[in-house]
Amino acid sequence: MAEPRRSRGRELEPLFAPRGIAVIGASDKPGKLGTAMTASLDRFPRGVAMVNPGGGGMYTGVAEAVAAHGTHIDLAVLCVPAAATAGALQGCADAGVAAAVVCAGGFAEAGAQGEEHQQAVEAVVARTGIRLLGPNTSGFFRPGTGLYASFVPGAADLSPGGVGVVAASGGVNHALSFRLESAGAGVSLGVGLGGGIDVTAPEVLDFLRTDERTRAVALHLESVPDGPGLLEAVRRLAAEKPVAALVVGRGRTDEFARSHTGALATSWATTRALLEQAGAVVVDDENELVNAASALTAARMRPDPDPGVGLVTGQAGPGLIIADALTSQDLSLPPLERPARERIEGLLPPLTYLENPVDTGRPGPELPQVLAAVGADPGVDALGVYGITEPVVSLPDAVREAGVGTRIPVLIGVDGPAREVERVRAAADEQVPVLVGPSALAQGLTALAADARARHRAAQEVDRPARAPHLRLGDGPWHEAAAKDVLDSVGVATPRRRVCRTDEEVLGARGDLQGPVALKLLDASVLHKSDVGGVELGITGPQELGDALVRLRAAGARDVLVEEMAPSGTDLILGVRRDPVFGPVAVLGLGGVDAEALADHALCGLPAHRADLEGLPDRIAASALLDGFRGRPVLDRAALAEVVSALAGVLAGAPHVGEIEINPLRVTDKGLVALDAVMTPMEETR
Amino acid sequence: MAEPRRSRGRELEPLFAPRGIAVIGASDKPGKLGTAMTASLDRFPRGVAMVNPGGGGMYTGVAEAVAAHGTHIDLAVLCVPAAATAGALQGCADAGVAAAVVCAGGFAEAGAQGEEHQQAVEAVVARTGIRLLGPNTSGFFRPGTGLYASFVPGAADLSPGGVGVVAASGGVNHALSFRLESAGAGVSLGVGLGGGIDVTAPEVLDFLRTDERTRAVALHLESVPDGPGLLEAVRRLAAEKPVAALVVGRGRTDEFARSHTGALATSWATTRALLEQAGAVVVDDENELVNAASALTAARMRPDPDPGVGLVTGQAGPGLIIADALTSQDLSLPPLERPARERIEGLLPPLTYLENPVDTGRPGPELPQVLAAVGADPGVDALGVYGITEPVVSLPDAVREAGVGTRIPVLIGVDGPAREVERVRAAADEQVPVLVGPSALAQGLTALAADARARHRAAQEVDRPARAPHLRLGDGPWHEAAAKDVLDSVGVATPRRRVCRTDEEVLGARGDLQGPVALKLLDASVLHKSDVGGVELGITGPQELGDALVRLRAAGARDVLVEEMAPSGTDLILGVRRDPVFGPVAVLGLGGVDAEALADHALCGLPAHRADLEGLPDRIAASALLDGFRGRPVLDRAALAEVVSALAGVLAGAPHVGEIEINPLRVTDKGLVALDAVMTPMEETR
Repeated sequence: MAEPRRSRGRELEPLFAPRGIAVIGASDKPGKLGTAMTASLDRFPRGVAMVNPGGGGMYTGVAEAVAAHGTHIDLAVLCVPAAATAGALQGCADAGVAAAVVCAGGFAEAGAQGEEHQQAVEAVVARTGIRLLGPNTSGFFRPGTGLYASFVPGAADLSPGGVGVVAASGGVNHALSFRLESAGAGVSLGVGLGGGIDVTAPEVLDFLRTDERTRAVALHLESVPDGPGLLEAVRRLAAEKPVAALVVGRGRTDEFARSHTGALATSWATTRALLEQAGAVVVDDENELVNAASALTAARMRPDPDPGVGLVTGQAGPGLIIADALTSQDLSLPPLERPARERIEGLLPPLTYLENPVDTGRPGPELPQVLAAVGADPGVDALGVYGITEPVVSLPDAVREAGVGTRIPVLIGVDGPAREVERVRAAADEQVPVLVGPSALAQGLTALAADARARHRAAQEVDRPARAPHLRLGDGPWHEAAAKDVLDSVGVATPRRRVCRTDEEVLGARGDLQGPVALKLLDASVLHKSDVGGVELGITGPQELGDALVRLRAAGARDVLVEEMAPSGTDLILGVRRDPVFGPVAVLGLGGVDAEALADHALCGLPAHRADLEGLPDRIAASALLDGFRGRPVLDRAALAEVVSALAGVLAGAPHVGEIEINPLRVTDKGLVALDAVMTPMEETR
Repeated sequence: MAEPRRSRGRELEPLFAPRGIAVIGASDKPGKLGTAMTASLDRFPRGVAMVNPGGGGMYTGVAEAVAAHGTHIDLAVLCVPAAATAGALQGCADAGVAAAVVCAGGFAEAGAQGEEHQQAVEAVVARTGIRLLGPNTSGFFRPGTGLYASFVPGAADLSPGGVGVVAASGGVNHALSFRLESAGAGVSLGVGLGGGIDVTAPEVLDFLRTDERTRAVALHLESVPDGPGLLEAVRRLAAEKPVAALVVGRGRTDEFARSHTGALATSWATTRALLEQAGAVVVDDENELVNAASALTAARMRPDPDPGVGLVTGQAGPGLIIADALTSQDLSLPPLERPARERIEGLLPPLTYLENPVDTGRPGPELPQVLAAVGADPGVDALGVYGITEPVVSLPDAVREAGVGTRIPVLIGVDGPAREVERVRAAADEQVPVLVGPSALAQGLTALAADARARHRAAQEVDRPARAPHLRLGDGPWHEAAAKDVLDSVGVATPRRRVCRTDEEVLGARGDLQGPVALKLLDASVLHKSDVGGVELGITGPQELGDALVRLRAAGARDVLVEEMAPSGTDLILGVRRDPVFGPVAVLGLGGVDAEALADHALCGLPAHRADLEGLPDRIAASALLDGFRGRPVLDRAALAEVVSALAGVLAGAPHVGEIEINPLRVTDKGLVALDAVMTPMEETR
């Protein structure tokens, strides 16, 4: 009954491809939800049964009414109040209905009474196996099959298109779908998950993976009930179709909460980072989601870690806006090679700019040849064409004539009078998306490139750390020296050290070690040694050693760690922990007290592709510090990846370890050294 | 002849409000620039003279042809090649024409030959005083007067609207104007400056200030020839009408150049910071420019340092996107006060969210009363209303019925089928802008709030530092001690110190000073003392002092600065310098070597409002470090403002000082202390 339902997109056939449909609570009274739903479903070509058994609003005769209908009913659309939903749903299940949409609100989000209704519905789902979309959703639509199970006015007029929309909210599903229609891309399947009792995003993503009409997917997330399931579904889908994703939750309410936890990485940031790692193109707002998804309905760019974009513009000013946006996103506009340059010089009059972008001035009949020349340049992996609408030159015609769309994806950007823009859209081929304005074109090209980068990463081998089964960790808690012993055993360098109890042992240790030493209070129950005066650094002579020891004892030190000082360098913080939603993650930031105030961190899920691990430093703002800035030591990215991988191995092999943090992990001329480490038992991190 | 022309917007009357117009190079051959221009100007109700004297393409008979025309010609639109422009322009001036638009390219941007043409045109402008827009522009239009001096197809169909567009590029002017038309806001005057030989942005801004049709201004900048003139024009304009501004130039080409200068602030960042300080709403891309300018055509919010926004949504999911975007921009959605809450509770069924945002669920006939209640809440300074289009409830009608637009600005956000969105637009009052989608609504509300904040700052007194005329600086270069003497004289705290030559003097100084001391090489020609081993810190005993002195002498020290060590704290970098475009600016960043790698700086022009100075720390990412983070000293913002003001006074009083940088300026529990200072003569900063 409660079997795992992940990744079984085919199970959603009765929901999204029903043979027959019943509307429970159908109505013809204006303004009622059931009325609007009935009107939308009127487009369905097979059969729609209107069921409204009445009877005190308890819908007791549902099973009989559904069964009485001629065609087989796969899908029931429930437009009945929350209190009547469980009963009606049971009736549907009894009549052999395999899937249902529940539009009503008033469930878990609405207090104790609603919670009861929800439990009743959940019980029916568990008992019968009926698949349920909702509750609290305005429904879904699949224009290509004439199926519009939505009560939103105008939804039933949506034409078929290439984007699958999976939205946390019914309202957002509709907003995105109307926008995608206006943008010319259109929608293949639009789903608002609503309450998400049963059918969740991963399953719908799996369904879209094999849906022929879907060329790209737009995903909207508010919260993530099943992190690993979501990431796996995105990974599977992105391997076959491009996915753009918008994560809500950057704003202050959450930030405020987070600012009190002191956590190094936020769940909003985590969700975004892990979606990107799984292969999604992560965007910042719903406009960018529409532009990215529209652009991604073009052919995909080939996998590439650093794809190049060719840009041809009819007007230099908008061209500069596009180039500015692209290069701000670290996207390269590679200089054209000699053949393309010579070809273009022969086509265009002497101009201000013949590099990349190519500014044609007001485009003329030579435009197709210019596009062909730029599109044939080996450094150009996608082509953007921008122009203000012209009666003389049609950009879609020019792209078609250039024949360039077969080798690489091509996006058209236009501005102009609204009706002319529509004319350009209407003239464009399906695989050549048309975006309005310089920024939209830049967002589209950026999305294509992000997809190419993600595919390149995905093609590499995943770094699966050894589980380090030989580790003898004990149950914890662990003090610093114990944590460092673990690091030693998995190959992470630590300073030479001695654990001492008596003053004599400390003196002896001092003699064994080289150079100035650090003395530290050793107590697993003290998390912030510095705060209690438990750290003494750079101790040289015997007098200093004695004084430091007195202070440490005064701070409560029983056991003392004596340790060689590391060479100078740049301090990082590197942690691995178990994210409550997504599981193991690694977090890298700049070390020192300042790092938390700067909130400058990069994050990736574990296990990861080696490229993800080596790329972590590039995703912190202070990354320039790690590349030899002003004579500082250069970070060995491969060595850093090894350290992350080693820590990941400890987490994987020891389920009772909740978190390991190396702070600082020092970048020195002789490599990475873990100067301090905290290993926390699982129960303490919860 | 070469009188300053700044701020003389009225001088542009002949350009933008001509009595008669002549097209020089008029044509009826399809595809020619003069043909398109002639067709556009055909809408002009007064008189358009077609002039094409031919004669070997040299347009020698221009003066006669213009003079022969019946009406008085104020404006000549030149559609002639670059080589013929100066001659034709002279002819126009001879015939009493006061203004001209030059559409041709091929001037300074096109090599030596073009440079010659440009000089010839500049000479005519200087000699005759004729006002010139261009060259290399597609022109301008002023739909309200039927004047369309543009050769871009469709431009002459633009309807009158409320936004004045001032764009560096003709293409961007048209792109923005078509977009503003589609967005329902429309354009009052749209100008592409092109080459900007004569008429520049400040003058057009001044013109728009008194143009009755213009309710808000959209400004697009690529480069700034006259920084102070631009800022003054923005300041004047923003005092009367809201201004939104987009600055191009964030991208990698510039960033790359900058990354080698080591300059702490970039010209892109400088331009944005100073425009904002002058009162503009600075945006990130041209979509946001359109949304901001459209929103700003509503009534302005009253001046407020922390305005509150009320939000009413018909769908929770899009509402969450809006709230997320607003709070990410530090905009508050204040909780409604009791009267508003009680009123709304009486109107709406029990719902999930009745705070702010108010989520009505699918809106019904009670919507106007809900809007009135939220709009009347004293914490609500602007109202946003979002809904998916409905046949039953019209948002524009509801806003009208609520009568709320008279007290505060109201913006409507919609999504829905394109034709329904158009219907909403058509139904809305002029002062209630309609934006498409959650993000656009959020951008509009953010723009209104940014404008309210700017107006609040502008209402405060400007901090005009005393010019410190008593300073005896000498000519420079200055070493550290000299720079610190200057700081002392203007009231900036520095450590106690002695300048010494002999070892005996150093020993004596050590005796005079308290606690551990610093020894520094003192040489105005050494800019980075640390790099040459010229700094010795924390010296206590005589042995240490002797050793340190030996090392300093070895590093080349002749004069030695002996100085008390400051208490610990957080180090800032504070500089004042003369920006080549904008004049004096202050730059604040976090101190230490890391700061440059982080590129985390805030910048303001000088003189500044006190609020701008005190607000500098809030605009660096690491600002949390300055507010008592983990027991660190708290920065006294008023004291920081005093220090900036004091440095500004030195710059103002000493034109031969190019730059003063305090690095570090330490935030201690006892206040701010300048630990090191570099004062650089003007000639060295050029």
